[in-house]
Amino acid sequence: MKLTIKQDILAKALSSVGRIASARAGASILSSILFRTEENKLIIASTNLEVAIITTVRANISEQGSIAVPARLMTDFVNNLPHTDVEIETNEKKIIISAGGNKSTINCMPADDYPALPESTTENTILIPAEQLKSAINSTVFAISSDVTRPILTGVYMHNADGQIFMAATDGYRLAEKMVIKSDIDIKAIIPGSTLQDVARQISGDGEIEINFNDEQITFKIGETEIISRLIDGRFINYKQLITTDSIFTITVDKTEFIKAVRMTELFSREAAGSILLEGDISDKSLKVKSITSQIGDNISIIDADIIATKEQECIVGLNSKYLIDVLNVLSGEKVTLRFSGKMSQILITGESDDYKHIIMPVNS
Amino acid sequence: MKLTIKQDILAKALSSVGRIASARAGASILSSILFRTEENKLIIASTNLEVAIITTVRANISEQGSIAVPARLMTDFVNNLPHTDVEIETNEKKIIISAGGNKSTINCMPADDYPALPESTTENTILIPAEQLKSAINSTVFAISSDVTRPILTGVYMHNADGQIFMAATDGYRLAEKMVIKSDIDIKAIIPGSTLQDVARQISGDGEIEINFNDEQITFKIGETEIISRLIDGRFINYKQLITTDSIFTITVDKTEFIKAVRMTELFSREAAGSILLEGDISDKSLKVKSITSQIGDNISIIDADIIATKEQECIVGLNSKYLIDVLNVLSGEKVTLRFSGKMSQILITGESDDYKHIIMPVNS
Repeated sequence: MKLTIKQDILAKALSSVGRIASARAGASILSSILFRTEENKLIIASTNLEVAIITTVRANISEQGSIAVPARLMTDFVNNLPHTDVEIETNEKKIIISAGGNKSTINCMPADDYPALPESTTENTILIPAEQLKSAINSTVFAISSDVTRPILTGVYMHNADGQIFMAATDGYRLAEKMVIKSDIDIKAIIPGSTLQDVARQISGDGEIEINFNDEQITFKIGETEIISRLIDGRFINYKQLITTDSIFTITVDKTEFIKAVRMTELFSREAAGSILLEGDISDKSLKVKSITSQIGDNISIIDADIIATKEQECIVGLNSKYLIDVLNVLSGEKVTLRFSGKMSQILITGESDDYKHIIMPVNS
Repeated sequence: MKLTIKQDILAKALSSVGRIASARAGASILSSILFRTEENKLIIASTNLEVAIITTVRANISEQGSIAVPARLMTDFVNNLPHTDVEIETNEKKIIISAGGNKSTINCMPADDYPALPESTTENTILIPAEQLKSAINSTVFAISSDVTRPILTGVYMHNADGQIFMAATDGYRLAEKMVIKSDIDIKAIIPGSTLQDVARQISGDGEIEINFNDEQITFKIGETEIISRLIDGRFINYKQLITTDSIFTITVDKTEFIKAVRMTELFSREAAGSILLEGDISDKSLKVKSITSQIGDNISIIDADIIATKEQECIVGLNSKYLIDVLNVLSGEKVTLRFSGKMSQILITGESDDYKHIIMPVNS
């Protein structure tokens, strides 16, 4: 291989594909990045056998070839190079990089040792505006489970219902559902959470993202980069039945004030594993965010609140402050609405838009 | 105790004194901060028994008192409060804090359980402009040793010679000396490195820092804050003899280019414990920064250099890249001068000003 490429183009490509490679520093070939020329294009790719990231960049190629380059060293090195043309030359086991006054040799592995990259699927296609997809990922993916014994909960469920495509995730303690786009395409795919984090990280700017999928695999085309991932096998839980707006209390508060009050109270909730109490005062039009009494002390923060109650009952509920902060951070708009029916009821949390719903299960206190 | 204080004043005072307290989370009373009123002033202080930080702030005090408050919780809490007046009320074992819609109770310990704070010394006084002291600390303190079996090397030696006050530090592999100020005051004090880091952190803006000391203790007065520290007992090494400008090679390079070249080469020096080679080419007027050949590969970065040689000899030396980066980061001016006499000689590094000298011992390669 012999080619010339701009430093910034090479650095950007390496940072796109390098992260999944370096995550597996142990397995030698999987900590490499594959370089392969195809006519006048340079393909830079990596895979951890579950997901592959493949990006294509322009380069001035004078000799075709391929090689597997150590991801971390190559990325660090290219990031430090001056913003000039970078000359690359390889033999079977070495890459020689020259730029400005620098000349470096990095020992590599033959490209033949690198695992085969998956082919992208073309059976079914959905187009989603980039910002909309990124927002849908960011409002759901934090709610996945890290429990590998229930693999379906470690993914985000992308599926269609009533002419709309939704993304949903749950870890059993909370549930997030976002309407992504109106579409009649039939999809029922459980996408690994880590794949979607890679997709969100890759999206910058606008345009449309092309998604191709079959029963086993999904491909996201983001500009010149493809992210190809296996899907998680299994049936997602029938979560729709959990989402009900039928509740005794409807409380609306200012989001910024609410976040501050939760953060203050959270400081006192360490001993209670993060549990805090929300207590509405209908006549006073206020919501108390309270810590559960602990050895270190306690806190009450009071904020203005609009409260509607359909029944006379104690307006109080306990929940995990971390889960509450997670959802408040992704809600759009200035107002937050909480709906619940008493101490042991689930809490439905929505912002000013109808397309996002979040449920947190209560904690006993 | 009963008082009202502005949130920003209280937050700043807590962040000044809180750090040394929270470093010892284990020992319960030493993880506290002492609050004590004195007429119309509130004194906020902490000590780890080696150093004490004492700050005095204005507050509207209606009832005198004192209490030991958990440092971390109090600091986190006050940082999150709105920018309003904060009302504080204490009984022997509780502090009650009200601000905006928040009311919080933090469990505390009696002030009597808190260790006695040292009295500040007044025997000898030096005045040093704040920026000059901060710069002297930052150019020397990184060269101290972390080896507690040689306590004198864990401090910075402040001493006078020829009508000047110097600060010097060495870990046996490198040595830094900064001329701080012209003065005839007689001082020979080994100040713990961590104390000086606290002092540097505390300095913001200009003005003069008053330093008071005796044989055992030193006090830095920075605005309304006093840092009182024990001194390290012992005689510092006679380092002056090591600093000599008598060398075969004098190489001057651009600092920014040199830092880049060292950083590039450092990437390849992991296996060699950070060792790199500097090789001057007199006829080519260039300096090669080279890695030592390793399994991962190698690098050569070439930069322009002015080289003077007083003798015909191989112009090469090996040294630790981390030490080199450390000193390059604190050198002032655009040019760096290196002086050495061959492969196994020490390297003297200076910037454009005469008041700072740095020596790095060579590595065998």
